[in-house]
Amino acid sequence: MIPTIEWQNGIVRMIDQRYLPRRMQFYNCRNYHDVIKAIQTMVIRGAPAIGIAAAMGMALAAASSKAKQASTLIKNLEQAGEKMKSARPTAVNLAWAVDIMLDIARASHHLSCELIKENLQDKAISILNDDIAINQSMGKNGAGLMPEQGGVLTHCNAGALATGGYGTALGVIRAAWEAGKRPHVYADETRPFLQGLRLTAWELMEDNIPVTVIADNSAGFLMQKGMIQCVIVGADRIAANGDVANKIGTYQTAVLAKENNIPFYVAAPLSTIDMSLPSGNNIPIENRDPKEITTIAGKLFAPENTIAMNIAFDITPNRYITGIITEKCVAKMPYTESLKSLF
Amino acid sequence: MIPTIEWQNGIVRMIDQRYLPRRMQFYNCRNYHDVIKAIQTMVIRGAPAIGIAAAMGMALAAASSKAKQASTLIKNLEQAGEKMKSARPTAVNLAWAVDIMLDIARASHHLSCELIKENLQDKAISILNDDIAINQSMGKNGAGLMPEQGGVLTHCNAGALATGGYGTALGVIRAAWEAGKRPHVYADETRPFLQGLRLTAWELMEDNIPVTVIADNSAGFLMQKGMIQCVIVGADRIAANGDVANKIGTYQTAVLAKENNIPFYVAAPLSTIDMSLPSGNNIPIENRDPKEITTIAGKLFAPENTIAMNIAFDITPNRYITGIITEKCVAKMPYTESLKSLF
Repeated sequence: MIPTIEWQNGIVRMIDQRYLPRRMQFYNCRNYHDVIKAIQTMVIRGAPAIGIAAAMGMALAAASSKAKQASTLIKNLEQAGEKMKSARPTAVNLAWAVDIMLDIARASHHLSCELIKENLQDKAISILNDDIAINQSMGKNGAGLMPEQGGVLTHCNAGALATGGYGTALGVIRAAWEAGKRPHVYADETRPFLQGLRLTAWELMEDNIPVTVIADNSAGFLMQKGMIQCVIVGADRIAANGDVANKIGTYQTAVLAKENNIPFYVAAPLSTIDMSLPSGNNIPIENRDPKEITTIAGKLFAPENTIAMNIAFDITPNRYITGIITEKCVAKMPYTESLKSLF
Repeated sequence: MIPTIEWQNGIVRMIDQRYLPRRMQFYNCRNYHDVIKAIQTMVIRGAPAIGIAAAMGMALAAASSKAKQASTLIKNLEQAGEKMKSARPTAVNLAWAVDIMLDIARASHHLSCELIKENLQDKAISILNDDIAINQSMGKNGAGLMPEQGGVLTHCNAGALATGGYGTALGVIRAAWEAGKRPHVYADETRPFLQGLRLTAWELMEDNIPVTVIADNSAGFLMQKGMIQCVIVGADRIAANGDVANKIGTYQTAVLAKENNIPFYVAAPLSTIDMSLPSGNNIPIENRDPKEITTIAGKLFAPENTIAMNIAFDITPNRYITGIITEKCVAKMPYTESLKSLF
């Protein structure tokens, strides 16, 4: 499989996900501003993938710095980091990766600028490689929770394309298939960006895992009819109490799962858990351009001057969540305790 | 306002809703086959509007019949009626209107073919006019349930375009505005046909009623944030126990409303209530072409050969419904009794 993001001779190469599945096009970032633009315009999306992109963006920021002294280089990186962190507000992996890179730089302040730059490049690449390994561990931890057969519903894309590879929620589904289970995946199309219709369908079809796409408004019907045995999604940020920020529509899916007595799992690496926030109320929610709702395929569908709201994420309160699958273990209620014990 | 459907010198003229709001284009039906095609391809949609179309289709079938005897004409009408009824399966208004027209024809069997044809044309026109009056009565009955201010969520289009005029759910909102209330409407975009984004937004903007369009997956978020004071939708068929078939996504909205302690109302004329069906389990649900999910604006968004499900309606069990607003009164639980008393 083509990597979602990679470091190639001082260039960060990403699959441009805006064109999938129609076209495999790459987006090359030569400096950290390119990375910010890629994150903002959703060339790359998904909390873990954004984290990797930010780490590589910091390595690019270092590489292009003309600083002669470590202290100046660190200042340059702090400035770049501030801008990088504000590219998108909800996924905490962005700040997590920037902070790791700044820590590395600060810890290397006694080294030459060249060595600091090398260290940062090495760290960015290791964050990518670690992410894949973390997803595989999550897969192992979660596979047992997937049904032998029947339907598994997922929302948005929490797959290889949302991470360094393998995926969080789709990684768990992949691991279940590798272990011989045969669940059928139902993918919410996930308006407005259609990550389910475009990306999740594509990824799973490439892996020969059967998938059926539905409109976001159909998930409840399938649950009512007994066609869904469990729900699994990724996360953009998890508060210390287990409240989960994830793609808009996740909350609805969780409420419907509870109403129909269906387990609801979240698969996310520890880097997505933000222990500094006591609850989901403190997680910033991004509003995106309303044109993403009113205009599809370049065609305005709504009347001229229609007011639309394009809320990108929502918060699923912890009480709807059966378990949070991490690379360490599956955390259960009460999350305030189980999540704390992971760190 | 331009009528959704009208009888013009032996032609049934409809607004072609597939092109709204971009283009006001008309679709002229010269025979009942044209009407069937218009219903199937969603030139016209919405249970009451489909009922009116079917009645007019029967009048066209009579007009074009070459029968010399009443008994032959009635046979021709019975054949046309069978085909008309199977155009779409879920909305009961279709069968309701066909049966009314057949009853008229049979009751007129002693008259000349010319007179029967005239009677049928008159009846079709009176079904249209009655529908508008019925919607206005529903509006009066339901306006008191709408909030003075705050948000009212609606799903799909249950407005003038779904009826002869004024609308069911949107009729109630219109009546609330006429009575001086100032609710703000939130319209689910309603994938895949985008009735909310295209039709509800257009209708309300024409009437200067403020409306904000959201993706179907965002309604729960707004409820969670306290932005929705009540939900109101139309219906395609209501069983004797109050279970409601309506546009896919209605069930989800009802579950979310209950979870957030928000009243959930259905506005529908008596012609939508099917007392022959004990519960919603007996209501047939239409599956439409999966291409309506995978292809938008003529552009394939999903990977080639993607499997998609395009379920057009769902069933909301009666326990989620706060009240059913009809032209007679607002029926409340237990619906088995309150609906029975309406007939």
